[in-house]
Amino acid sequence: MEVRQALGTHRAVREFAAKPLPDDAVRFILDAGRRAQSAKNTQPWEFIVIRDRETLRRLSHTGTYAGHLSGAALGVAILTLDPSRRWSILFDAGQAAAQMQIAAWSIGIGSCPATIYQPEEARQVLGFPQDLALNVILSFGFPTDPSVITDTLRRGGRRPFEETVHLEHW
Amino acid sequence: MEVRQALGTHRAVREFAAKPLPDDAVRFILDAGRRAQSAKNTQPWEFIVIRDRETLRRLSHTGTYAGHLSGAALGVAILTLDPSRRWSILFDAGQAAAQMQIAAWSIGIGSCPATIYQPEEARQVLGFPQDLALNVILSFGFPTDPSVITDTLRRGGRRPFEETVHLEHW
Repeated sequence: MEVRQALGTHRAVREFAAKPLPDDAVRFILDAGRRAQSAKNTQPWEFIVIRDRETLRRLSHTGTYAGHLSGAALGVAILTLDPSRRWSILFDAGQAAAQMQIAAWSIGIGSCPATIYQPEEARQVLGFPQDLALNVILSFGFPTDPSVITDTLRRGGRRPFEETVHLEHW
Repeated sequence: MEVRQALGTHRAVREFAAKPLPDDAVRFILDAGRRAQSAKNTQPWEFIVIRDRETLRRLSHTGTYAGHLSGAALGVAILTLDPSRRWSILFDAGQAAAQMQIAAWSIGIGSCPATIYQPEEARQVLGFPQDLALNVILSFGFPTDPSVITDTLRRGGRRPFEETVHLEHW
């Protein structure tokens, strides 16, 4: 899929078909995140890849709107260094997340980020150390309705251009 | 350009040709940022688009490694709400930044983020209000060496897959 089409159609998908993702698709998604740029190439992330159904189900209870994780074919937990260390840690994690989701979309796979409101419960499930923080797990899977991948986006989903973009000065 | 190619070749570009960007390219880049996803669709960003050479030059002095802004055809200042309000603000700004940079790359335009270490000086130049924060300005322009757009990335620029990706559990 062309970049222009991917960026012009990408939307959140929360309902996934009960169909596993091919290994090469999972690798493609993870590489897109791993290769994201970061401040001074610090790569301040670690990814935990989750396909075990019971683990996904337990993680779906660690966030208020994280229910979609229970039906995902794949979860990718984005662990970071302590975000209070510098502004760029979460910014860079966002860049990695965007790249993973656009990569997935370009091969017909939907995704949605789940905010983790109970990181200590997620830590018990996933076993990561105290010096790493978890704010978000991405759900991935083939959409229940595959036509969403190529549908044109509805208008009005974002603030208008003129409201968001300022020319030369505030 | 295909998503797979864009993600597989994208790298930072800091040296730009003295050639302006077409208006439709600038619009494409900004729309890619504006349409990025954000937590609960809060769109916690404002973009200031800078093409004035003197403004770019002044901004290039507001960060230690921001010199590339002085030669850019376009700067996009990403203003956000106060990042201490919630974890997702900088994460979402990172998603918007990644989308703008991949969009640009797909049409032959390079980019690089500049960290703004002196945001108050940048505030004086750009005139944005106190309740908005500025951590990063993206430089954009046609690369001095256009072949970088399609060159294969060198190996070894990122931590290995096996070191970054953890299967099912830490």
